[in-house]
Amino acid sequence: MDLEKKFREDIKKIKAYVYVLSLAGWDSNTEAPRNSFRRRGEMLGVLSKELFALQTNPNTINTVNKLYDQIDMLDDHLQREVRKAKKDIDKIVNIPEEEYLEYRRLINDSQLVWEDAKKNDDYPSFKENLAKIVEFNKKFALYYNKDANPYDTLLDDYEEGMTMKEYDMFFNALKTDLVPFVKKVLDAKKRDYSKFINNNYDVKKQEQFCDYLVDVFNFNRESGLMKKSVHPFTWNTSPEDVRFTTKYLENYVFSSIFAAIHELGHAIYEQQISTKYDDTLLSGGTSMGMHESQSRFYENIIGRSYEFWDAHLPKFKELYPEQTQGITLSDMYRAVNQVEASLIRIEADELTYPLHIMVRYDIERMLINDEITVDELPSIWNDKMEEYLGIRPENDSEGVLQDVHWSDGMIGYFPTYALGTAYSAQIYHAMRKELILPKLIKENQIDKINEWLKEKLHKYGSSKTPKELLVMITGEEFNPKYYIEYLKDKYSKIFLSRS
Amino acid sequence: MDLEKKFREDIKKIKAYVYVLSLAGWDSNTEAPRNSFRRRGEMLGVLSKELFALQTNPNTINTVNKLYDQIDMLDDHLQREVRKAKKDIDKIVNIPEEEYLEYRRLINDSQLVWEDAKKNDDYPSFKENLAKIVEFNKKFALYYNKDANPYDTLLDDYEEGMTMKEYDMFFNALKTDLVPFVKKVLDAKKRDYSKFINNNYDVKKQEQFCDYLVDVFNFNRESGLMKKSVHPFTWNTSPEDVRFTTKYLENYVFSSIFAAIHELGHAIYEQQISTKYDDTLLSGGTSMGMHESQSRFYENIIGRSYEFWDAHLPKFKELYPEQTQGITLSDMYRAVNQVEASLIRIEADELTYPLHIMVRYDIERMLINDEITVDELPSIWNDKMEEYLGIRPENDSEGVLQDVHWSDGMIGYFPTYALGTAYSAQIYHAMRKELILPKLIKENQIDKINEWLKEKLHKYGSSKTPKELLVMITGEEFNPKYYIEYLKDKYSKIFLSRS
Repeated sequence: MDLEKKFREDIKKIKAYVYVLSLAGWDSNTEAPRNSFRRRGEMLGVLSKELFALQTNPNTINTVNKLYDQIDMLDDHLQREVRKAKKDIDKIVNIPEEEYLEYRRLINDSQLVWEDAKKNDDYPSFKENLAKIVEFNKKFALYYNKDANPYDTLLDDYEEGMTMKEYDMFFNALKTDLVPFVKKVLDAKKRDYSKFINNNYDVKKQEQFCDYLVDVFNFNRESGLMKKSVHPFTWNTSPEDVRFTTKYLENYVFSSIFAAIHELGHAIYEQQISTKYDDTLLSGGTSMGMHESQSRFYENIIGRSYEFWDAHLPKFKELYPEQTQGITLSDMYRAVNQVEASLIRIEADELTYPLHIMVRYDIERMLINDEITVDELPSIWNDKMEEYLGIRPENDSEGVLQDVHWSDGMIGYFPTYALGTAYSAQIYHAMRKELILPKLIKENQIDKINEWLKEKLHKYGSSKTPKELLVMITGEEFNPKYYIEYLKDKYSKIFLSRS
Repeated sequence: MDLEKKFREDIKKIKAYVYVLSLAGWDSNTEAPRNSFRRRGEMLGVLSKELFALQTNPNTINTVNKLYDQIDMLDDHLQREVRKAKKDIDKIVNIPEEEYLEYRRLINDSQLVWEDAKKNDDYPSFKENLAKIVEFNKKFALYYNKDANPYDTLLDDYEEGMTMKEYDMFFNALKTDLVPFVKKVLDAKKRDYSKFINNNYDVKKQEQFCDYLVDVFNFNRESGLMKKSVHPFTWNTSPEDVRFTTKYLENYVFSSIFAAIHELGHAIYEQQISTKYDDTLLSGGTSMGMHESQSRFYENIIGRSYEFWDAHLPKFKELYPEQTQGITLSDMYRAVNQVEASLIRIEADELTYPLHIMVRYDIERMLINDEITVDELPSIWNDKMEEYLGIRPENDSEGVLQDVHWSDGMIGYFPTYALGTAYSAQIYHAMRKELILPKLIKENQIDKINEWLKEKLHKYGSSKTPKELLVMITGEEFNPKYYIEYLKDKYSKIFLSRS
């Protein structure tokens, strides 16, 4: 019992450091003045070092190892916590300190190298860094488990329990079934339905509309807030402090609306987690994939539904009478579900989005398994884009250099975006057996949907694995068919039916 | 030299903790959602404990004491740092830990007790807490220096080098000279010149005007920002990150304008301190009084000058054409310098403000010296208000309960408000020998004034004491005559001259 007490104390202390570092992150990303970063780097450097010393303190590690030795005697929650702690420790302790520091320096440097390379369309200036990042990731994965394929180890870092086996199955299904369907939709699409959305939309009124959405989605304003930032994101330190941002573009009003709804999905998930996990390692959403399932559920399944705009187009038209003159509900529905083969992942629509992820998965898989080298990346990237989406980037800035992830050392992260979206369709399938969604959405009762998700999913925090949760919610393991069916059904009706 | 290195390391570590705690304070006071405070209290509690352990660590203390033993061998800056560190340590180490913790609990509890007492106009429910706070402050002051009058020790906490002797001289001068003058002005004043200012002033436009002022005062936006909050304040972690807030009232447009200018004074002081002090104990403004001298200089001497409104009334009228119809420069000048005997210190005008401070100084002085008890406070307060300002509060919420300071343990703080304002007049007197202020203000060249203050005062941070600085800037010790002359001159011209 003393052991558990020590474990709890260590966690609380570690959480306190993470708390303030995280708070500084919120500030840095939303309002900190430009010149503040130099001093901030120094000050947070001191605390990060303190935190690292705490996390790798032999005493801290010893407590975890001793608890792990008697794991069968612990209750379920504590078992899961100890396993998580043990895994985190094992990921770090086997790495020689010098290599770890070298890697941190590499990542630090690579940010600027990547930024410049992207700005100057100069992939060669980045590729050496990328090669080193790939090598380090592989090496570290093997330090942790020399018997596993290193890409499997990396995939598990971002989505517990997922390996190439599952992802191959998932992406092969998309390749076989979705790619040809997307081609059909793109061929059939006759015109751009969303032109009216590029008119000038006063930003102050966009803020008003997003503020209205905060209430539509029943976000708890006493436990959070909405702000703006260059890159929309959600931030949280506890279910009682969950904040998110959106981004306003005068000439693209959907940017603020759908970024807000997307982040509201992440934010409502965090707000609905039980506070009993606050002082444990089971706080926060359970995985990247499950988090993305919630943001995509709110953004696409609710926010891009016919009923949603049936309910809220009047408010939108009230704010923008001129810009939306003559626009019907059906125009709006088609506009928010516009499909287009495009080069940039973060601007992709619901239907083509997973194909962007497939490009990245294929490349990561081959890179880590030494099937290709960084030299070949640009051409492979472009070939894959052509294969899946029928378009070819004209430069690397809009191609292989577009995303920040790899320069930041995140290899194995991308697949969770598509996986999460697929989870959301499977969860949607289960939800429809119990809730009449179109009615709830149309009648502005999203709180009922929130409540369902809270009871089935949100409240558990990370006390369950994503796999466990999916089975609990849907009665079966992950199955991509729901996702493919959902997309085909929705987009056939919009773009392939004769009308 | 190893000793100095250790000293530097300790300071840097301590500063890192103060940095993040301070950042959390900024967030708490400007945007943190209501429900976030419970968790925040827990998390910051952990870090505050770590910080306290660092500060009182025998190793840390030992380093300071060893450096202090050889203080004459150190360079000037290091000498001043070591003296400051030694003083801080001596203030704490002589207090028995149990008493210190009891005091912290008392202060913590007293906040709510005071809030409730103020809300319910119930002084008796607060007076026991106040009596204990006074007792603790006296006791702690005597632990530090048993030979000094404890109020002198407390006064020095807030303004280095100030004692009752100096303050008595200052406030006696005000009593003799200013009180009768204020009476004369109040008697002579025929009408309220500022009625037009209570019209409805759209808050969005007030924000625009304050934003305009940020540039008028040449505040560096790359090293800071303006935001809003319930109580205006300035916050800084380094000269490169200085933020301030103002408060918007639809029916009192001067609130946002003069709070912004006041805080701009604090903020520009902090921005102009040399960054070379960042890692030392000499960072930040040198004292409460000197800080207040800057905020009052910008607010009153610049912001309430005729030339200032000559330059900026057009912009104000442009934003509010209807509300300011027919208002002349001379109307505006009288409006911003409106004089009125009022009950609430923070709403007092430039002329009557110091009389509010005198009430508090008299009472603190008598309380700590056991000349009165807390039981008598309300009646003494009201008598003093009547004596100095000619008005009497009808309840204690608007009387002895109005300020937060005493409930927060701050005894000896109030006098610095008046002292700082008096400093500003003495500095103004010196400045006018070198700068033609009316011209600079009228021609919107406040950057020249900033530059003068930077070179004479700001850049030194707290590497000099307020006393040293005042002599350096003005060539003489603190002399209240400049303040009294300034007030008499200005307010005679506005309200006592025949015109």
